Amino acid sequence: MPVYADPTDGLAVPVHLLRTWTAGLLGTIGTPPDIAADVAEVLIASDRRGIASHGTARLPNYVALVEASVLDPAARPVREAGRSALVRFDGRNGWGHHASRVAVDWAIEAVAEVGAATAVVRNSNHYGIAGWYALRAAERGLIGVSLSNTSPLVAPTRSRVAMLGTNPIAIAAPAGRFGSFCLDMATSTVPRGRIEVAARRGESLPVGWAIDAEGRPALTPEAALAGALHPLGGEESTAGYKGYGLSLAVDMLTGVLGGAAFGPNIIGLFSTDAPSDLGQTFIVIDPAAIDEPGAFERRLEGYLEQLVAAPLAPDAPGRVLVPGEPEAAAAARSDEQGIVIDRVHADGLRALGERLGFPFPDVAAASSGPVVDSGG
Amino acid sequence: MPVYADPTDGLAVPVHLLRTWTAGLLGTIGTPPDIAADVAEVLIASDRRGIASHGTARLPNYVALVEASVLDPAARPVREAGRSALVRFDGRNGWGHHASRVAVDWAIEAVAEVGAATAVVRNSNHYGIAGWYALRAAERGLIGVSLSNTSPLVAPTRSRVAMLGTNPIAIAAPAGRFGSFCLDMATSTVPRGRIEVAARRGESLPVGWAIDAEGRPALTPEAALAGALHPLGGEESTAGYKGYGLSLAVDMLTGVLGGAAFGPNIIGLFSTDAPSDLGQTFIVIDPAAIDEPGAFERRLEGYLEQLVAAPLAPDAPGRVLVPGEPEAAAAARSDEQGIVIDRVHADGLRALGERLGFPFPDVAAASSGPVVDSGG
Repeated sequence: MPVYADPTDGLAVPVHLLRTWTAGLLGTIGTPPDIAADVAEVLIASDRRGIASHGTARLPNYVALVEASVLDPAARPVREAGRSALVRFDGRNGWGHHASRVAVDWAIEAVAEVGAATAVVRNSNHYGIAGWYALRAAERGLIGVSLSNTSPLVAPTRSRVAMLGTNPIAIAAPAGRFGSFCLDMATSTVPRGRIEVAARRGESLPVGWAIDAEGRPALTPEAALAGALHPLGGEESTAGYKGYGLSLAVDMLTGVLGGAAFGPNIIGLFSTDAPSDLGQTFIVIDPAAIDEPGAFERRLEGYLEQLVAAPLAPDAPGRVLVPGEPEAAAAARSDEQGIVIDRVHADGLRALGERLGFPFPDVAAASSGPVVDSGG
Repeated sequence: MPVYADPTDGLAVPVHLLRTWTAGLLGTIGTPPDIAADVAEVLIASDRRGIASHGTARLPNYVALVEASVLDPAARPVREAGRSALVRFDGRNGWGHHASRVAVDWAIEAVAEVGAATAVVRNSNHYGIAGWYALRAAERGLIGVSLSNTSPLVAPTRSRVAMLGTNPIAIAAPAGRFGSFCLDMATSTVPRGRIEVAARRGESLPVGWAIDAEGRPALTPEAALAGALHPLGGEESTAGYKGYGLSLAVDMLTGVLGGAAFGPNIIGLFSTDAPSDLGQTFIVIDPAAIDEPGAFERRLEGYLEQLVAAPLAPDAPGRVLVPGEPEAAAAARSDEQGIVIDRVHADGLRALGERLGFPFPDVAAASSGPVVDSGG
C-alpha cells in the first residue's frame, strides 16, 4: 500500500483516543460494541500504517451507508457450508471488517487441525486494508493470504472501460527481526487515490498508470480520473495482461467462488443505491504442520537479510525494502507521536461527531513529523 | 506464457509421435515408464500450447543433468509430513514434473474430503510449465494454483543484481464454453526467453523489461542479457515493487515453506554442478464444497462473456482475451497440424536421439501454419 507523506498541517491524535472514539461513534449508529471494536481496529490499523485512504477518513462514507440502510451495522456473519478446510460465510450485508475478522479467525483456528484452511465470505462490504487480515495470521506464526474484490476501476488489457476492481492481494508471514513480511498490493499499477494525490499536487502521470476515457494513455490526473486505471504492468507491451489476469484471478477466488457480485456488476463501494455484495477470501497456512516450529520463520529471516544487503542500482533511493516495511515504520511513528491526520480529514471527523452527538476528542495541532512518501 | 510465432522453417510433428518418442528417450537414460510418461506429458503440453521454451527443446538440458548424476531419473517422491489439508513431499531430486504431478494429484484427491488442500514439494527439479498442474485441477472441475521458485534472474526493486527467480504463478478454473481459465505467468515483466527472441530479431527493448549490469534501464537485448530482468511492473515508479513482492511471495510459499533452496541460493536450473533443490506448491479448491455443483463454473463463464464483449481501446489488436486463450488456440492448432518445431529444436532432438540410440521419428517438413505472436 502507498505510504504518503505525513501532512504538515494537521492533528496528531493518540492511537487509543482515535480507536476509542471511532468505536463509540459506530455505536451511535447501531453497531454492537464487539463489532464496532473490530471495525475500529482495522480502520485505525490503516491510519497507523500511513494508509489514510482506507482508515477513519472513510467514516463519513461508512456512516452514510448505514444511514441509507444499505449496510446493516448489527449483522453477524453466518457460516453456511463447507468441509473441514474450506467454508463459506454469509456476511449478511454487515460490516466487511467484522465478517472478515470472523472468517480469518475461523481459518486461523482450523489450521491446528487441518494445516491449511480457506474461508470465503459473500454478501460482504468494504473490509479496509487487505493486509490487516493477513497480518493477523502472521502474528500467530502462520502464513496469511487475504483477497477481496472491489468496484470496477481497472480496464482489462485492450479495453477502454473499467470492468475490474483494484482487487487487492495481501500475503503476510512471520519474519524474525523483520517483524512480519506483509505484501499488500492493489492489482492495478496504482490505486485511484494516488491519481487524486497527483491531481492535488499538479503532477503529470507516467505511461502505465491509467488510460483516458477514449482508452489512450492518460498523461494528466484529470484525464485518468475520467478514464480507467491500468492493471499492474501497464500497457500490453509491458505485460499489463498479467496484472489484468491477477485482478481477474482475485475476483474469481472471492466474488465468483463465493457467489457474491463480481467484475462490472459491483456497484461503487460507497454508493448508497444498494448493498455492495463483495466477496473476500482468506487462506491460512501453518508452516509447523510440515516442519519444525520456527524453521520457516528462520529461513525467511535469513532470505530477507540477503535481500536488504543486495548491491544497489545507481539511482536507488535507499536499500532494498522488505514488503510491508514502510507501513511498519509508519505504524511505529504513529504509536510514538500519534496518528497524524490532515485538516480535511480532521474537519470531516469533527463534523461527523458533532452531527451524531459524539464529539471528536480535543487534541493539539500536530508538530510536523518525519516525512516519507513511498509506494507499497 | 508467451505464445511465439510458429516457425516457418521447421517440422510438424504429430502430437502422439512426439510424446511417445520423448517418453521412450527418457527410458533410455533410466527413467521408469510411468515417470517418463508424466515428464513427456508435461513437456508435450508445453509444445502443444506454443511455449517452446519449456517443452522438448529442453530435453538435451534434462539429459545432461541425468548424465551428470545431478538428477535421479528413477527417484519417486515421498510424502513426509502434514495434516489433512497440507502435506509436504520430498521430491528426492527426481523429475520435477513427476513429483509435482503426484503432489497435485494428492491435493485433487484430498479436496473431496477437506474442500481445499495444499501440497508442497521440496528437493525438486524444474517442473516445466506451471499451468499444466493448475489445468489438471481445472479439468476436474476444481480451482488449481501452481507455484514454483526458479533460479535467480530478477533484480529486486532498487538492486542491480538478480536475486529472485521468475517464479511463476498459475491459476486455472473450469470456464464453460471458454474451456479453462488459465493464468500462467512469470512474475517478471518478460521471461528471459523473450529477451533472447528480441536479440535474434534485432529489436530494442522498452523500459520496464530489464536492467543492464550497472542497474540502469537495458535498452538492448545484449545489455539485458548481461544484467537482470525487472519484476512485473518494471521500474519503481510503475510499481515494480509489486512484482518484486509477488516473486518473493512465490518463493516464500514454495522454497522457504518447503525447506528447499530459495532466492540467490538456487543454482542454475540446468547447471550440472549440483541439484537445484527447487520448491513447488499446489493449492486445489473444490467450489462444490461451498455451493451447488456447476454454479461456480456458470458464474465464471458469464463473467468472461462480459469481458470478451468489452468496448475496445483505439489501438487494441483484437478483443479482450481470457487468460490462457492464446495457449489453448495453439494447442488446438497443434492437435490438428502437429506440433511445429523449428530447425534448431528439431536438429537438437535428432542429435540427442542418435547419440542415445533412440532415433527421432522421420517426419516431413512443416507447411507454414497461421502465425500468432501474443504475450501471456
